[in-house]
Amino acid sequence: MKTVAILGSTGSIGVNTLAVAEQFRDELRVVGLSTNKNIDVLRQQVRKFSPSSVAVLDERAGREFEREMRGITRVFVGPQGIEEFAVADGADIVLNALVGFAGLRPTMRAIECGIDIALANKETLVVAGAIIRPLLAKHGARLLPVDSEHSAIFQCLVGEEPSSVRRLMLTASGGPFRLLSVDAFGAITIEQALNHPNWKMGKKVTIDSATLMNKGLEVHEAHWLFDLPGKRIDVVVHPQSVVHSMVEFSDGSVKAQLGVTDMKLPIVYALLYPKRAATTGGRLTIDHMRELTFDVPDLAKFPCLQIAYDALEIGGTAPAVLNAANEIAVDAFLNGSIRFVDIPHIVSGVLADHSTSVATFENIVHADSDARRIAMEIVATRPLV
Amino acid sequence: MKTVAILGSTGSIGVNTLAVAEQFRDELRVVGLSTNKNIDVLRQQVRKFSPSSVAVLDERAGREFEREMRGITRVFVGPQGIEEFAVADGADIVLNALVGFAGLRPTMRAIECGIDIALANKETLVVAGAIIRPLLAKHGARLLPVDSEHSAIFQCLVGEEPSSVRRLMLTASGGPFRLLSVDAFGAITIEQALNHPNWKMGKKVTIDSATLMNKGLEVHEAHWLFDLPGKRIDVVVHPQSVVHSMVEFSDGSVKAQLGVTDMKLPIVYALLYPKRAATTGGRLTIDHMRELTFDVPDLAKFPCLQIAYDALEIGGTAPAVLNAANEIAVDAFLNGSIRFVDIPHIVSGVLADHSTSVATFENIVHADSDARRIAMEIVATRPLV
Repeated sequence: MKTVAILGSTGSIGVNTLAVAEQFRDELRVVGLSTNKNIDVLRQQVRKFSPSSVAVLDERAGREFEREMRGITRVFVGPQGIEEFAVADGADIVLNALVGFAGLRPTMRAIECGIDIALANKETLVVAGAIIRPLLAKHGARLLPVDSEHSAIFQCLVGEEPSSVRRLMLTASGGPFRLLSVDAFGAITIEQALNHPNWKMGKKVTIDSATLMNKGLEVHEAHWLFDLPGKRIDVVVHPQSVVHSMVEFSDGSVKAQLGVTDMKLPIVYALLYPKRAATTGGRLTIDHMRELTFDVPDLAKFPCLQIAYDALEIGGTAPAVLNAANEIAVDAFLNGSIRFVDIPHIVSGVLADHSTSVATFENIVHADSDARRIAMEIVATRPLV
Repeated sequence: MKTVAILGSTGSIGVNTLAVAEQFRDELRVVGLSTNKNIDVLRQQVRKFSPSSVAVLDERAGREFEREMRGITRVFVGPQGIEEFAVADGADIVLNALVGFAGLRPTMRAIECGIDIALANKETLVVAGAIIRPLLAKHGARLLPVDSEHSAIFQCLVGEEPSSVRRLMLTASGGPFRLLSVDAFGAITIEQALNHPNWKMGKKVTIDSATLMNKGLEVHEAHWLFDLPGKRIDVVVHPQSVVHSMVEFSDGSVKAQLGVTDMKLPIVYALLYPKRAATTGGRLTIDHMRELTFDVPDLAKFPCLQIAYDALEIGGTAPAVLNAANEIAVDAFLNGSIRFVDIPHIVSGVLADHSTSVATFENIVHADSDARRIAMEIVATRPLV
């Protein structure tokens, strides 16, 4: 029986994780739940899973919920509360499904306590991979990827020598605008960008999938998870999303991991690793596989991908800037303040302004807040073409 | 440095193995070569690789070559000679690329000496899997598959729990008649049947690829290599031959192994296992993968596949009969004695006549020779429609 604390249990990955925990109740016990401020959903989850503790990021909602839960469950409140919560119940594994930069501190805290992390929070590795990697080694904790691409690579590497890996191939659905002419990109609406062909995800990651920034951030993650330079991590456009990613070995052999597009599968793999679960649903059939296509990404249409490779190459605090500027840009697009095609311009503009420094925690925090401020200034003042 | 003896060094797999040995001369040393009666090629190979011993199956050619090689290398002659040869030089691994039933005894002999087998001889497992499996366990020898499909599965299983395997998917190119209407099968010529779209192989296996009997025999092999019943070993038609086979696990995850269609890759994998080689050529590119298709096999067009499944289900000596009858039928087709569509009729006719017994070595030898005799009688006397 493994005990699991979930950071971000009311988001889409959190909800899927709880569905997994329900299905595997003989093997997994949920000891912690957390939300930003979605108290209604959290309350239902508390009733169903009776965790030892919960955490609420929003101070006001958290204080109120703390009163409500008195005698029922312990409630941690605020950013500091989330961190304490992550290590409060001695969970065997912490699933981190927080969105954005907020996922970093709780991850570091859990690693410092030697707790394994099932990581669905991209930003942790993108902005702070240089901090996380030595921390894992020092405290003997493991990082288990939860998104389907990295889980696929992780699965392909089981039993293989890391030194025999020549290249990773991250598959990308190509998003909703794969077939759209580059001339039509200026008129892309929010609704169109939120309409992802294969995966149902949160808004931020759905927009990142449409710009391919999501894939760029995954290249960063893969770099830190699997210790390969960006030039040995390729992105392959595969609209059917059946092949979740691939690894090429030194002898020319390629291994791929395939499956239905159900994020419960990588979640259960991470939570039960190294054991494979005996799941009942979600099997790949010949009808999923009749025609699988692969192509290189069009960088003219999706400049965010190239920008992400460039930031990885620069290193230091540049990836933190990439991530922060992109968060602001996506937010601005979702608020209707900017157009879809303005996202890469904002991100590359902020990156161009940035003087990279070494990726210490302080420098990252500073670079992150600077980048957000500059990005917001651009959004607010620049006449975007 | 691993030492390798090659059974069948003058055939296509043998020649490819020597190309591998030449490329990896720092890791592999060829200590034995053998042929049926292709002395000219063997002589060149002896000059190039200076093996400690060679073997020639044909008695007359062998005696003559023995005289020629006096003082140069030791020559074993005849079926008994091939067996002694297989264990003569204390090779670390014996690559068995003999064709047909003749591969069985040398394989058993090597296993009894605790020597690992790189197996390209299908018949060893098809007819005598029930003998080979316990023999491997008893003598602590390993069986490493050399054909691309089983190598693919073997690679997909590295680091995985055998109990977590739900299903194997052997890919089949579909052969040259995949798109031919069933009505046109009666007019198939030898030349058409020998024209395999993706792989260059020997004649027998090329015809077996055209009837899909080859894939049926591979289902048998997979059964004995990976310990799964036939109903958990599916055949998937994949004309591009990029995915070499797949494994479905209990959690719904599927792993596939991909590569260029170069038999040197599974050969080098088997010979250097568990190490992966650093090969220079033969890399899969996006152009190999632009469109990959998968379909179920058409059993009306390829009855041999169903016959093979049936023989596996029957068990005992039935697979030996399947194999023997098929060898005779293919031979008769290549001699122009029968039509392509007569192959399955002969095989199923011989199988229907056979009273299955337990797969002891004596019973197998007996079933094999009986099946050959009956098949030849059918070829000689039956007015084939």
